[in-house]
Amino acid sequence: MFLEKRRSWIPPVPNMLQDPLSVSFQKGKKREVDPRLQSLFPITSEECSYSLEKGSGKKSDLKIGVLFSGGPAPGGHNVIVGMEQALTGGELIGFLGGPAGLVEGRFRRLQKEEILLFRNTGGFDLLGSGRTKIETEEQLAAATRVCQELKLDGLVIVGGDDSNTNAAVLAEYLLAKGCKTRVIGLPKTIDGDLQAEHVPISFGFDTACKTYSELIGNIAKDAVSSLKYTHFIKLMGRSASHIALECALSTHPNLTLIGEEEKGLSQVVDEIVSVIERRSKKGKEYGAILIPEGLIEFIPEMKRLISALNQIAEKDERVILKLEKEDKEVFETLPQEIQKQLLLDRDPHGNVLLSQVDTQVLLIDLVAKRLKERGFMGKFSPQAHFLGYEGRAAYPSNFDATYCLALGMAAVFAIRDGLTGVLCGIPNLKEKVDLWQIWAVPLVSLMALEKRKGKEKPVIAKTVVDLKGKAFARFSRDRKRWEEEDAYLSPGPIQFFGDKDLCDAPPLLLTS
Amino acid sequence: MFLEKRRSWIPPVPNMLQDPLSVSFQKGKKREVDPRLQSLFPITSEECSYSLEKGSGKKSDLKIGVLFSGGPAPGGHNVIVGMEQALTGGELIGFLGGPAGLVEGRFRRLQKEEILLFRNTGGFDLLGSGRTKIETEEQLAAATRVCQELKLDGLVIVGGDDSNTNAAVLAEYLLAKGCKTRVIGLPKTIDGDLQAEHVPISFGFDTACKTYSELIGNIAKDAVSSLKYTHFIKLMGRSASHIALECALSTHPNLTLIGEEEKGLSQVVDEIVSVIERRSKKGKEYGAILIPEGLIEFIPEMKRLISALNQIAEKDERVILKLEKEDKEVFETLPQEIQKQLLLDRDPHGNVLLSQVDTQVLLIDLVAKRLKERGFMGKFSPQAHFLGYEGRAAYPSNFDATYCLALGMAAVFAIRDGLTGVLCGIPNLKEKVDLWQIWAVPLVSLMALEKRKGKEKPVIAKTVVDLKGKAFARFSRDRKRWEEEDAYLSPGPIQFFGDKDLCDAPPLLLTS
Repeated sequence: MFLEKRRSWIPPVPNMLQDPLSVSFQKGKKREVDPRLQSLFPITSEECSYSLEKGSGKKSDLKIGVLFSGGPAPGGHNVIVGMEQALTGGELIGFLGGPAGLVEGRFRRLQKEEILLFRNTGGFDLLGSGRTKIETEEQLAAATRVCQELKLDGLVIVGGDDSNTNAAVLAEYLLAKGCKTRVIGLPKTIDGDLQAEHVPISFGFDTACKTYSELIGNIAKDAVSSLKYTHFIKLMGRSASHIALECALSTHPNLTLIGEEEKGLSQVVDEIVSVIERRSKKGKEYGAILIPEGLIEFIPEMKRLISALNQIAEKDERVILKLEKEDKEVFETLPQEIQKQLLLDRDPHGNVLLSQVDTQVLLIDLVAKRLKERGFMGKFSPQAHFLGYEGRAAYPSNFDATYCLALGMAAVFAIRDGLTGVLCGIPNLKEKVDLWQIWAVPLVSLMALEKRKGKEKPVIAKTVVDLKGKAFARFSRDRKRWEEEDAYLSPGPIQFFGDKDLCDAPPLLLTS
Repeated sequence: MFLEKRRSWIPPVPNMLQDPLSVSFQKGKKREVDPRLQSLFPITSEECSYSLEKGSGKKSDLKIGVLFSGGPAPGGHNVIVGMEQALTGGELIGFLGGPAGLVEGRFRRLQKEEILLFRNTGGFDLLGSGRTKIETEEQLAAATRVCQELKLDGLVIVGGDDSNTNAAVLAEYLLAKGCKTRVIGLPKTIDGDLQAEHVPISFGFDTACKTYSELIGNIAKDAVSSLKYTHFIKLMGRSASHIALECALSTHPNLTLIGEEEKGLSQVVDEIVSVIERRSKKGKEYGAILIPEGLIEFIPEMKRLISALNQIAEKDERVILKLEKEDKEVFETLPQEIQKQLLLDRDPHGNVLLSQVDTQVLLIDLVAKRLKERGFMGKFSPQAHFLGYEGRAAYPSNFDATYCLALGMAAVFAIRDGLTGVLCGIPNLKEKVDLWQIWAVPLVSLMALEKRKGKEKPVIAKTVVDLKGKAFARFSRDRKRWEEEDAYLSPGPIQFFGDKDLCDAPPLLLTS
């Protein structure tokens, strides 16, 4: 019932994308590139930014492949709907199960009828996704063979920072090998940490935050109704705290930790304890606290401890003997469960799996201890939550559905106009859809060299929360008030049908 | 924005409730009452059922109190909106913080303007709630004094099975003391386990299940997109598995455990393992499994173990020494974390706190071990979830908003017509709102004697899932197919505005 109704909704198309024959990408200014990247990307590091402008355009009879990379984000299917809509002829090939589908030549021709069944739906299940990276010479050569055999004019990679780094590498490789397949990256990640000039936010962020905000609003409402629980809510989102910030602005919890403030563990615990004590004095023995998944990486002593753990070969209790005194002390203050998570949950490279660390449980434990030390006489009944998978494959909001459709169309035009190694973006997403501008930014211009596993590697750096930005300023202005007042907002479940004001609003991060 | 729009929606009113002057409650048949209850409830055990019928009615100029009891359930505020709407004059008194507000005389006069700000909103925050039981002579006497001082014509208790048991006790007590205040119970609980003739479902169940189903649908969609996780999703709902069954019917997960089937722990683990193995053979190394919170109470060996633990005075490791061999063996198969939860998390009476037992973690652990024993070569990446507080204070669905408004009005008419010790209900909730019938059922007729803390106590028995009922039959017919197919449905977030078909549907439990 809902599914049928939802997929029958036709997202609006920006004026600029309505007629392929009347627009084409025009060169903008050359982008600054880290000189050390020039040897790695000799061709694509020379690229400019492009904007789609009025003027004579060509038909887009093209054979294009598309793949999803990494965790799902709401709106992905609409990228493909947009691609189909922008093609005046040709063929659409979907690679199955992520980048591995390209390397291994697993794909399917996508037909319009099938694609339309996925319009405005969540998930990446039309194709599936995966986390394989196309990095090695072998993988690159295999991908090239597939592109050549299929005679692809272009390949659209829908992914986050890592996937778009791979897209840049592949674009350069294909050019070097004389393969005509152009590679276009599209900014996907609920984390919101893939940002650049002309790319104010990745798709999926809006829907995920609205889904989490629905739940946070409900939980806070529960707190102020039951009058007995303090909810510690961890939010997915990797390193950066964008999701926590956006959700804070839309729900006004009593406390929201922002990793980028780089507070020490003890300071974080003190802050929480202080809020609990002050609220308790007012008879408010309940509350809601937001904790970004990446907080732990920003806490200086935890960062050092984790980095030390990553260096030690042993992955069990023997680690402790090898830690320096300072790190050992930090380790020993941690609850047993967290110690276990730090020792046992490792990725294939032996690194601590930060997403598996229950920061919400850690903080509950430390706060309870601190309250006890301080002789707190009130009630403290904590509840731990983790919101993550609940939001990554939700039905996209009207904003994400429309944004993705435009991105898919933009990618086709970019391929038609011969662009490669670029990321498509819409700089003025907060304006009316009619007015949206379409840009393509060279991926190399977003990259820096970072040490990974001891080697310098080109990567697209994650954009973290700007503590001097407008969204943080708005949060910063109000947060003191939210600590003691119950200023909770319950924004409700995403609405799709009806008032534009209600259904189409962009994320607060863009409009603050 | 959403809040303003939502509270401006005016729920429809059943024909029977539109004009107080033209309807009155008419005696139906005398209800069977357990003879042992007659001495405990000498007056109210003589009550009949009543139905609201056309005929001359009176004005309802009454002074009525209302309180929320227990955990919040979506729609509670609309009970008060309905009460206000049904009063032709008089006064509405809200008791603060649950039954304690009545005993301690903490209350507030509620004005129309304020009440309307809470129309169609979630939570119980207009008054707050609490779990105090009005049981002792002292408490009953204090409540009586407050009712008398306020000269209340009636008192509406919005609660679940326990709270309505208390409502029955209070109704009898007030009658015996010659106090004119009539007590009306309204069926509140997301758990859906408060059912009776004429009361097919409690309010809040619909919204909570729709909220959980939104999230389960999203998680299953994530599973079939990421292709790598098996999600173990525990659902709130105390003993009975109604929520799990309703959510299963609306999302079609691969496996849904229904506590009432009373399978042994080993059998449950085998079933999960079998589904994982069969799916793995088909290349499907992901999935979604629903686990009702109360499952653990229905597993015979766990039930016996828990009952044994409750009897032993020690609440730490020494318990183990006192367990019988059979119970000890069961205890020792449990993961350490679960052992800890069984030993340490106790309620004020020393009983194991079942809601705190992470059944989803227990099953993940046991399934992983069993898979290993069986030499499973596929991938098993489990993710644990618990959905509960996310749904108890959500904005009520149109169904719950409308149902609660009608219940609030019905309660006022019942007080006006002199009824007491009754629970209001609407037997034909699955029909059009226009046609809804209004009933009042004597609370004593829902009661039985149960052993609690060694004493026989009158309680309203929880209604568990009927394994011979239509909803279970529908589930039972399809569940085999859902195991290996990916038949997931993603019902999306609750929609409030637009198509009636989309927004107003009653729970599947009623329409199966």
